[in-house]
Formats: sequence, structure tokens, C-alpha cells
Amino acid sequence: MVVQRIAVLGAGSWGTAYAKVLVDAGRDVVVWARRPEIAETITEQRLNPDYLPGIRLPEGLRATADAELALDGAQAVVLAVPSQTLRANLAVWRGVLPEGVTLVSLAKGVELGTLKRMSEVVAEVAQVPADQVAVVSGPNLAKEIAARQPTATVIACTDHERAVALQTASANEYFRPYTNTDVVGCELGGACKNVVALACGMAAGLGFGDNTMASLITRGLAETARLGAALGADPLTFAGLAGLGDLVATCASPLSRNRSFGERLGRGETLAQAQEATHGQVAEGVKSCSSIRELAQRYGVDMPITDGVHRVCHDGLDPRKMAAELLGRAQKAERS
Amino acid sequence: MVVQRIAVLGAGSWGTAYAKVLVDAGRDVVVWARRPEIAETITEQRLNPDYLPGIRLPEGLRATADAELALDGAQAVVLAVPSQTLRANLAVWRGVLPEGVTLVSLAKGVELGTLKRMSEVVAEVAQVPADQVAVVSGPNLAKEIAARQPTATVIACTDHERAVALQTASANEYFRPYTNTDVVGCELGGACKNVVALACGMAAGLGFGDNTMASLITRGLAETARLGAALGADPLTFAGLAGLGDLVATCASPLSRNRSFGERLGRGETLAQAQEATHGQVAEGVKSCSSIRELAQRYGVDMPITDGVHRVCHDGLDPRKMAAELLGRAQKAERS
Repeated sequence: MVVQRIAVLGAGSWGTAYAKVLVDAGRDVVVWARRPEIAETITEQRLNPDYLPGIRLPEGLRATADAELALDGAQAVVLAVPSQTLRANLAVWRGVLPEGVTLVSLAKGVELGTLKRMSEVVAEVAQVPADQVAVVSGPNLAKEIAARQPTATVIACTDHERAVALQTASANEYFRPYTNTDVVGCELGGACKNVVALACGMAAGLGFGDNTMASLITRGLAETARLGAALGADPLTFAGLAGLGDLVATCASPLSRNRSFGERLGRGETLAQAQEATHGQVAEGVKSCSSIRELAQRYGVDMPITDGVHRVCHDGLDPRKMAAELLGRAQKAERS
Repeated sequence: MVVQRIAVLGAGSWGTAYAKVLVDAGRDVVVWARRPEIAETITEQRLNPDYLPGIRLPEGLRATADAELALDGAQAVVLAVPSQTLRANLAVWRGVLPEGVTLVSLAKGVELGTLKRMSEVVAEVAQVPADQVAVVSGPNLAKEIAARQPTATVIACTDHERAVALQTASANEYFRPYTNTDVVGCELGGACKNVVALACGMAAGLGFGDNTMASLITRGLAETARLGAALGADPLTFAGLAGLGDLVATCASPLSRNRSFGERLGRGETLAQAQEATHGQVAEGVKSCSSIRELAQRYGVDMPITDGVHRVCHDGLDPRKMAAELLGRAQKAERS
């Protein structure tokens, strides 16, 4: 299985950065942008100033606002649109997807309402078997990858051969992909990390340092792994790049919106105040803590950090009280 | 099994901070300090300015320079001396250790020459069975714990009952211990983290950001887990507080000596220059990368990051070349 001709649907920061990775790896890539002026600027000026300011895009990268053109002859289709719009976008493209093509999801999160993972949404809407869908996840801050900083990542697909083909297609001197067959685990890691990043932000806002952050990251990953196990994931996946790796990059980065939003809450701002200060935007974790909590309840999984974040965000719980409650729980073994 | 009367042997920053945790948890604690003036200052002024500047110690904490006095009637003995002096110190105390007492190691590392873990050194020198020895590990930056910042930790002992007794003895409103029976895994996590912190520092010195750090942390933990598995540890331990938790706290902390030492090497300083700049001190990871590499070779385990750090520190390899080599290795699955 050779993957040479690739369509990247979505020209946001991660979509554009991953398209650049593929071109730098020698692939033949066409990016689809919703807005024609973005497609034009990419093709003519080698720039995407709205999403990757200051980054020079490679010569070989082509862009178009015509999805059919982008998809023509593609051996792999990378879906790089926001998670909550993936279903609607894919419904439009469904008719023009090449037969048997590998569909690659870059979106992270759990669909509101249906509580489905992104690869489930893809398989359902595109009407393809699950082993035709792959996901890319890991410590993937788009700006750093676009600047050719070394990073490792995971390409997960239940069909190992497809994962290997994508690995070969993506590997270059700054981007090192590892394969994994545990799609469920890789996706859950990406979905849950924003909630833990919110908790880390709250701790920082309360004035706590690196021990507290490291404790929250570790125990946050432990509860993510418990949910994963209930959903059929391999617990060891969470110790990998799509679990720990993505989580550490997100919690450590001063650029993380979830972390800085949490910091505001930790300093005593209300959700409304924090939202106002961030120009009306609410951090992703504020929404996803509700769907993840619902998923955990459905499967009878204990997720005290997610639950605490949910109550701070949606029930007005004082973050200081959340900290005291987490510390005051019954003593137990590390894995139980 | 009740642990109420505890001796803490060693009044450095972590020994003193852990003694404070125990007193704050309601225990009856005597600290032994090598230098009588430190014991005096702790008892009379409630201060240990050399090791925990600015921290007020609790009323109940007693200190002495007489080890026999500290040990008298103790139900647990906490060993808080530097790893490379643990053997010599313990040989002196051996004759006065209470019968059947739990020995708790706070020391991290692998003994140079013998390549033994600290709990192995303890059992050997004190001539007690391995299940009488416990270790405390996790994200434990002494200054933050002394400032009552919330943290989680692991107390590991192959005798679960002893671990639970120590857990009960240590738990308070800012310190949350979890038990674990995997002593090998908990100790290896603590020993290997300094090498990974050096690698993270080198990456920062080369100008790389959070993706690279997160990738190194994740793959560093993966190679630590491979070594652990070869030595009989449970791979999941490394996803816990003594693995990931300790590693993240160390790599994220601007106070970490290993990280900042690595940064100097990444910026192009030689080992000698970096050592001169840090007043003749060499970071712990510079020494331990050699013993861990030796251990890995003995067990036939592939540890590319440790090997790279070793070659930068001891064979003059350019850190930039180390990065290129790590990225250029054969492609593989995440767990293989």
C-alpha cells in the first residue's frame, strides 16, 4: 500500500502544519480551504498568515477551495476540520471520496450529544468500515511542528498496514511517527487532555507549582486510562505519545488556551468573567468535561478530576474546595 | 500494624520536608542531622535555613545529632541521605536498628559500581528481607511540599500491609500517598528521570519547545519501562506517580539542576564548562546515565535517549547530532 497523493481537508493551523510535514516528507499534497482567499494565499505566496503567521510553506504545497479537486486521485484524505463540524463537512464530501481511500482524522474530542469519538463519526458518515479510518495524535503544537522542531507522534489504525503506509508517508527529519493499533485509546487521550489542562490551570491560578501540576497530570491520565479500559482501549496507550505526550505538551505550553482559561478560574474569576476576558471564547475543556463525565457515568467509571472540573465550570464550585476534596478522598492503591 | 513513632535519618531538604509531612499528619518524629548545629536550629528555632529557607517547621518536630536517640523506639526508619553515601551510613546504624522495623528509602538512583537499586542496598546492608524495605517516590519537589502545596506520591513495598501503614502515617491535607507493590518500577522511575531531564534540557538549549520536551518525556519513559520490564517491574508503574509524575515535575521545574545543566550542554558548552558554571557540581544524570546504560546493556535493552545523553556527556557528541540520530532511527510501532 503506497500513499503518495494526499488531500488535506481544512487549512487551520494543524491542517496546514501537517500538510507541510507531508510535503517535507516528499508527498504530493493538495489542501482544501473553505475560504478561497486562504487557498490563493497558500498557493501564490506560500503563506497562511491567519493560522501559521511567519511560517514559509514549501513550494510543492498546492491549495484549492474546491474539495472535489483536492480529493481527485487521493490515496489518503486527512480530515482537519473542527470536531464539532466534522459530521456536517463529511456529509458534503461523502459522494466524492475515492473508493477504499484511507480517512485520517486530526480532530480531537467527543461529539456532543452522541458521545461518539471522531473516528466513529467518520466511519458512520462516510459509510466505511472502521479499519479504513486512522487517527493522528500526540504532542502536536502546530506552530512548533511548522518551525521544524523535532517531535514524535502516533498514527493509529486497526489496520496495521494502513498505519504503516501513513507512517512512511509522513516521516521526515523533524517528524517521527510511531504506529499503534489502539484507535480508541489514542482518541480518548486527545479528548480528555483539555479537561486535565483546565485542572492544571486552576492549580496554577491557586498559586500551586510543579508537584501539583505533575500530580494532576498523572492522576488525570490514570482516570483517562480507567475510562479507556472500560471502552476497550489498552491502558498502556495512555503512557504513550497520544496520552502522556499530548497531555504534557498541552499542560506545559503557555500557549494552551485550556490552561490559561483554567488559571483565570483558579484566580477566582467566574466562567462568565473568564469568557469575557477571552473575547467570548470558552476553552474546549469546558465543553468536553460534560460529555466525558456523561461517558464515564454511562460506563460506571470514577473520574474525580473531570468531575471536579465540571462542577467548577458548571456548578460554581470553588476551585480551592475542589483541591481539598481531591486530597481528602479515601486512601487507595495507585492502580485500583 | 501501626506506625506512630518515626525516625528520619538525614536533614537535607527532602528529609526535612518529609519529616514535616509526618508531623503534620500527627506522627511523633525525630530527625537525625549529621551536623549538631542543624539539629539545634531545627529544635530551637523551628528552621532549617540551609535546606529549606523560609519554611517554618512544626512545633512537634524534634531533631538530634545522635542517631541512636533518633532510632530509639522507632516503628519506621526513613533513610534520607544521598544515594551514593547510603551504604556507608547504614553500615554505621545497622547495630542500633529496632528489630522488625520498616526501613523507608527516600534516596533515588542506582549505586555506582554494583548497579544496585537503593532498596537492594538497604536490604543487603541492614540484613533484612526485601519486604521490610519501602520506598517513597513521586513528584516530590521538597520546597513545594514544605509550603503545603497539594501533591500525590507513591509508597511502594512488596509487603502491602507495611505500605498501607506508612500511607496512613503520612496522609494529611496536602500530601496524598498511594500504595504500590512494585518497588522495582518505582525505584527505576526515580533513577532514570534525571537522564531524561538532561535530554529535555539539551533540547531547550537547542531552542526546541514543548512538543520536543513532551516527545522526549514520553519516549524516555518508554525506554525506562523497557528496562523496568527486563528487571521484573510492571510497565504500568511508569505511567504512575513514581514514573511519569516524578519525571514531569523534574522536567518542568526551572529549579531542576539536571534540566539546567542539560541546557548548558545544548547551548554548546562542554561538560567542563557547564561544571565550572555550576560551581564544580555535576548534575546527577551525568553520573547515572553511565550506570543505567550499563544496566541496559547487561539486560540487552535498547535505550536510545540514555545512550545519546551518555555520548553527549562522556564522548563529546554534539547534541544537535544526537537529535538528528534519534529522529533518523528505523520506523516502528509505539510499543515494540
